[in-house]
Order: sequence, then structure tokens, then C-alpha cells
Amino acid sequence: MAVQAVESSTGSADSAGSSVSLGPAVALSCRECGERFPLGPIFACAECFGPLEVAYDLPTGDPEGLRKRIEAGPNNIWRYAPLLPVPADVADKPNINPGFTKLVKADNLARELGVTGELYIKDDSGNPTHSFKDRVVAQAVEAARAFGFTTLSCSSTGNLAGAVGAAAARAGLRSCTFIPHDLEQGKVVMAAIYGGDLVAIEGTYDDVNRFCSELIGDPAGEGWGFVNVNLRPYYAEGSKTLAYEICEQLGWRLPDQLVIPIASGSQLTKIDKGLKELIALGLVEDKPYKIFGAQAEGCSPVSTAFKAGHDVVRPQKPNTIAKSLAIGNPADGPYVLDIARRTGGAVEDVNDEQVVDAIKLLARTEGIFAETAGGVTLGVAKKLLENGVLDPALTTVVLNTGDGLKTLDAVAPTTGPTAVIRPSLDAFREAGLG
Amino acid sequence: MAVQAVESSTGSADSAGSSVSLGPAVALSCRECGERFPLGPIFACAECFGPLEVAYDLPTGDPEGLRKRIEAGPNNIWRYAPLLPVPADVADKPNINPGFTKLVKADNLARELGVTGELYIKDDSGNPTHSFKDRVVAQAVEAARAFGFTTLSCSSTGNLAGAVGAAAARAGLRSCTFIPHDLEQGKVVMAAIYGGDLVAIEGTYDDVNRFCSELIGDPAGEGWGFVNVNLRPYYAEGSKTLAYEICEQLGWRLPDQLVIPIASGSQLTKIDKGLKELIALGLVEDKPYKIFGAQAEGCSPVSTAFKAGHDVVRPQKPNTIAKSLAIGNPADGPYVLDIARRTGGAVEDVNDEQVVDAIKLLARTEGIFAETAGGVTLGVAKKLLENGVLDPALTTVVLNTGDGLKTLDAVAPTTGPTAVIRPSLDAFREAGLG
Ligand SMILES: [Zn+2]
Ligand SMILES: [Zn+2]
Repeated sequence: MAVQAVESSTGSADSAGSSVSLGPAVALSCRECGERFPLGPIFACAECFGPLEVAYDLPTGDPEGLRKRIEAGPNNIWRYAPLLPVPADVADKPNINPGFTKLVKADNLARELGVTGELYIKDDSGNPTHSFKDRVVAQAVEAARAFGFTTLSCSSTGNLAGAVGAAAARAGLRSCTFIPHDLEQGKVVMAAIYGGDLVAIEGTYDDVNRFCSELIGDPAGEGWGFVNVNLRPYYAEGSKTLAYEICEQLGWRLPDQLVIPIASGSQLTKIDKGLKELIALGLVEDKPYKIFGAQAEGCSPVSTAFKAGHDVVRPQKPNTIAKSLAIGNPADGPYVLDIARRTGGAVEDVNDEQVVDAIKLLARTEGIFAETAGGVTLGVAKKLLENGVLDPALTTVVLNTGDGLKTLDAVAPTTGPTAVIRPSLDAFREAGLG
Repeated sequence: MAVQAVESSTGSADSAGSSVSLGPAVALSCRECGERFPLGPIFACAECFGPLEVAYDLPTGDPEGLRKRIEAGPNNIWRYAPLLPVPADVADKPNINPGFTKLVKADNLARELGVTGELYIKDDSGNPTHSFKDRVVAQAVEAARAFGFTTLSCSSTGNLAGAVGAAAARAGLRSCTFIPHDLEQGKVVMAAIYGGDLVAIEGTYDDVNRFCSELIGDPAGEGWGFVNVNLRPYYAEGSKTLAYEICEQLGWRLPDQLVIPIASGSQLTKIDKGLKELIALGLVEDKPYKIFGAQAEGCSPVSTAFKAGHDVVRPQKPNTIAKSLAIGNPADGPYVLDIARRTGGAVEDVNDEQVVDAIKLLARTEGIFAETAGGVTLGVAKKLLENGVLDPALTTVVLNTGDGLKTLDAVAPTTGPTAVIRPSLDAFREAGLG
């Protein structure tokens, strides 16, 4: 088997190129010029420096058979192995197995928001390390195995390091992840607990990134898979599984409207890619759908460009409580603009207060405690409904990509007891609670 | 339908008794004297003050049909509705829908521990509020609905209040929960975020409990369901679902050995009850299994009694980092002793350092970050293996009942970066990492 052969080789990136076995993935293709390259740990086009993405030979021709095969698969993303850059036997390998998270029909929330159609929350807080990042990291693990890498790495502000640490531990790979030295202790613990090497860099997150770029070009980084750099084309494909799951959980149909957070923009573009694949494969009936992007006001380069009618995205310096979305220069920003415009969607932003309000709204109505990114997405959905941009009569899916336990600080100042009382029935009644 | 009729009535506890529709549940029966009572919000025998538990008329006679019905059910605890005190249409009602969490085959961990048989972690951190408590609270919600209660309540040190708040929000019930006034802010946020009333009591957790007992007897508490007091018989049954899931996920077979944490002891006794039901129903082949109980050394009344050969459990004053297990006077202690002895199991305890080591061991080998209770359970499993009490050649299931994100403080002092370095390759190499 090709993978075995590669794994027993030196693990050098260049030698792995043509013989890897990553299921339906057949090549990398440049998003800008269309040039194709053999599957390998590369991320930029040699011709035009455009971003590379995975090209597939997908199993067309028997949608009913494919659907049955998926439905008989495991309750995680590997049920979609025939559509992902992973070997066919991926489910038998040790992996953190994220996905197939709940699609919650949010009737209480719909009533509060005046939504008369079906409203759903796709709740990715149910993943192993409680964010959608487990989906993308799980893909990177399989790519790392295929290319013979033995160390999994990333630069991170905390969450990604945790997801990489957990996935590497389970997969039996070494991990060595990099964070800025001044993170809160809770985030450091989450990044360090899985026992891989965690290196704190005396500098900003930008310094961490620059250091990682140096390391990739250095012999010290040989045999290392940086999930969001040299494994990025594979890593990014993990977000397609959100599209697959949403449609399958809706009974194999497309939603009418999706509201998706924007950090780099990769997730939104891959969800669109996933939906188009399902249509092409005949797994869902073709019909129009609208994609809406959500940003925090304090980091809204894509929303700003959308509203100004621009095709290019001007970088911003982030200042928002939604730290997991705080990418001031989003690589996939122009593609996001294109998708929002092409599908008839929009990109909108909300301020920090609206983010906190939306977190509380979701918790109060549906019992789901979302990370700040989830607050951004629901806050934007609410704003778009109020502005008449989102149609309240249609089937709408709002993404919650992470868990509120990870961003307690955002709500702590305004979340506390209704009352503090002495342990007596009189005190209880005096507080107006009896 | 009976439930509807009850729901539209006054919601008085006493009027609900005989007409409620809770699926296969037919009565409450006293664990001590066997006396039966109609289904209602009562928890102690009127004859002998013994604890009441739910008695069933279970669907015997067609195991194959029952198995198929379960397998066709939803990916949560309601697939087992035919075996639980819930209405048959429970899956259609708004509920937080916990369960069907991962049973992780822990091959890396098995290698480290010298286990040659199959070793599994039942990982309940995947539940909606990230602990097994969602299972029991979900049952209490359905009982509350059946009895016409409109407010869901509990005394709590934080986690249970969060689980109750989330479940009530989703179910459209009011919640009013009670905590001691001096909890850490993070726990208060988790208890308050779901928007119900959260009352901080100036006093200890014992004071909170005493106050709640007063409230149940007062008109102010009329129409209130206290999940772990007047709804306790229903609430407790939720732990049976752990037994059902483990056996179904093993391919409808019993494990040989289970290691289960002990707080009140209820979970362990209900898992045993669930296993016995599966045997009686013909859903699994009958064979011996051994149940092992796990406690923290700083709160080990059951372990102490087991080792001393006693039938009664002498209360202890808890002092351990495993706060979710810190019940010094466990109500079900004698039943736990009985089950451990009857099945050929044991009860053991580990100290706080061993708890932390076990948390790190599980994270490092399987990428699962467990709560302190999970550290207790795995720590005990390790100790029992070392002592030759647990058989390494058999199929063993170890429970992780909660998420490490909730008890970060326990590991924070000893979990941090491998190195702190300047952003340069030289510094990287000097740190011995390159
Ligand atoms: Zn190109
Ligand atoms: Zn009795």
C-alpha cells in the first residue's frame, strides 16, 4: 500500500509527492491559475503563488449507493471519507474522530427572532476539543501520515495548539506547537495537557508565525507537518464536512440560508465547496442557497469590503472579544466576497456588546453556551433578520463553531447570580423569588 | 394523552400521581422493603423511609425487534426510551438530548498500562454541558413535565446548576438553582449563563441543601421539581443509559470489567441495574461482569468500608481536588459495597497526585482531557492493574464522566510550556528542540 511505503521512507516532503494514497484526492490545483501539482506538502502555486486546493475524482454515477454508504458509516466525519483527502480505511486508524455534531432545531430561538421558517444551530461545541478545529486538524493528521511526517505542528493563540496536541496524541504522532508567551493560564493548560512539546515564544502571535515560517525552511523543521501551513490544503478541506453534515441532517436537502463566521474565510469557502459537491454528486436536489458571512465589528475587513462594494479586502488591526475570528488580513477574504455576492448573501458585523447579547440569547433559548465566535454569528443573523436581509420564512442554519467554556471572560462581567441571600425562606421571599 | 392532561392541570404534585405517562415506568418501589407507590414526585418510602426507585414493565419477548428499534432511534439517550421513565414520544419534545457519547478504544493507553485485552474509555465529556449530569437531568426534565412542574431546581456546587439551567432553557421550563455564594467566577458563569434564576446562598453547600429542603416543604416551592430531591428516582435512572450505550457500542455484549467513579454511588448502582436489564431482555448474552468503584483518597468512605469488610459506610469530611466526587456521606454507599462484592469487583482510591497523573496519562495517550473525576477513575484502574486486581487480559471499560475544561485548576500548577524562547532558530536549538 502506497501509504505504508511512504511512511517507511525518510519522511522527506519532496519524495512523497506522487505515490500517496489520499482516497479521491488526485492533485492540488491552483485557485488562481488552475495549474495542477501532485499531492504533497505544498501550499502555494509554483507558477503564480496562488493558494492550492485539493482536486478530486469524486464517486459520481451512483448517488443512491453513495448515500447508503455514507449513512452506514461511523458517527463522525469519516462517514464522508469518499469525499475527503483521506485513505479509504481512515476510520480504522487512531484519530480523534470529530464531527457529526448536533444540528439543533432551535424553535425557542426562532420564536424570539420572529423566524417562521425552520431555524437550526449547527453546534460544533460537541467536538472532542470543543471547536470546529478538530475537523480540520483531523484531516491534517491523515495528510501528515500520508507524507510520512512524524511531528505535527502549528502556530496558535491556544485553541489550535490544543486541537493539534489532542489529535497528535491519539494518532501516535509527536506534536510541537508554538504560542505567544503571554497567554492566559487556562489557554496554556489546554494547549499543554496533551503532553506534546509546547513552545512559548517571547513575542506576539505575528512573531510566532514568522518563527514558524523560518522553521519550515530549516533542517530543524524537516519531517514536520504544520497543519495550517504546509498541510493547509488538506487541513482546510475538513470544513467541507460541515456542509455534508448539515445537508444529511436536514434529510439530504440544502438549507436556504447559512450564516457562517469569517476568520481567514477558509471555512466559509469550503462549506460552499461542499454544498456544490453534494449537488454535483446528486446527493441533494439542486436549488439556490444564500451564504452570509459574520464578523466582529472590531475585526471586519471582509464586511467592510462587502458593504463598500470592493473586490479587495483592506487589512485591519483586530480589537474584539471574538479572538478566534481576529484575523486582520484574511487570506480567503476575496473568495468570501465572491461567494456572498454570487449566492445573493451578504457579509455583516456586530459589536462586542451584541456578541455577548447573542451568546446569552442562545443559552437562554436553547441551552447552548457558545464561544464568542458563535455570538458573532448569531448576532449577525439577528441583525440581518432585523434589516430584512435574511428571510425569516426560509430554512436557515447558523453555525456555532466553539464552546463558551473557552471564552468565559467575554461574558463573566455581566453574568452572575440573580440574588445573593441568607439561607432562609424570608430572605428568599424578600428577594422577590418566592 | 395523560401527560397533556397533567400539564394543563394545576401542576400540584399530589394530583399527578396515578395518571402520568412515563413509558414503561409503572410504579416507584422501595429499595428496602419493596413497598410500591404510584408514580409521583416522591423519593422516600412512606413505610420505612427507604429510597424509592422506578419499577418497570419492560418490553420482553422480542429482543431482536427491540434491538432494531433501538438501533433505528436517534443518536442520543432517547434511543433507549423503551427502557426509561419517559413518554414514548420523548424524542419529539425539546430536550437537551445528551448521550450516545464516544466509547473510545484506547490502544495507546492499553499499551502503557500493560493491558492485553480491549480497553475502552466511555467519554461523557461529549455531552451538551460536558458531563454525565446531562443524562440524569434530561430524565428529570421529562418527569417534571409529566408531573406538571413548571420550575426546575437543584442545589449545586456549580456543574449541576449549569446542566439544569441548560436543560430547562431548552425545554421551555423556568429554572431556579441554588449555589454557595463563594464559588469561583467560572463556575458561577457556567451556572448563570442559561438565564434562569441563580440564587447564591450566604453559607456552605450544606446550608444550601438545608435551605432547599425547607423550600420543598414551603408553598414557595410548590410546582418545583428539584432534580436530585423530589425527582431523584427518575433523575437517577439516567445513569442506566451508560450501561446501555457501552453494551450497544461493544456490539451488544457485556464488558468483563467496568471501573466507575463513586460520588453518591447512584451512578454505579444504576449502571449495574442497566446491565441486568439488558441481560433480562435478551439484548446481551448473560455472562459474569465485575464492577469496580473509584474514589479519591480525600473522600473515600466507600473504599474504606470495602477494604475493612464493613457493610455500612462511615461518613468522611471531603478534602480532595475531585470536587464532583466529594460526597462524604454517600447515600448509595451500602448498595455499592454489595454490588462490588457480588460481582467480584472492588472499591479503591487514589490520592490527588495520582489523579493529576492519570489526567495527564489519558490526555497524552488518547487525546482526551478528563475532569478530576475521570482522573480518579483511570487512576484507580491503573492501581488495580498494578495490584493484580483488574485482569489485563479482559475487556475493560473505564468511565470519564466530565471534561477537563471544568477543572483546569487541578492540573494548571503542573502543566505548562516545555520551553519559553526568543523567536529564533538558535534559541530553538539551544532549548534542545531542533
Ligand atoms: Zn497558480
Ligand atoms: Zn420501604
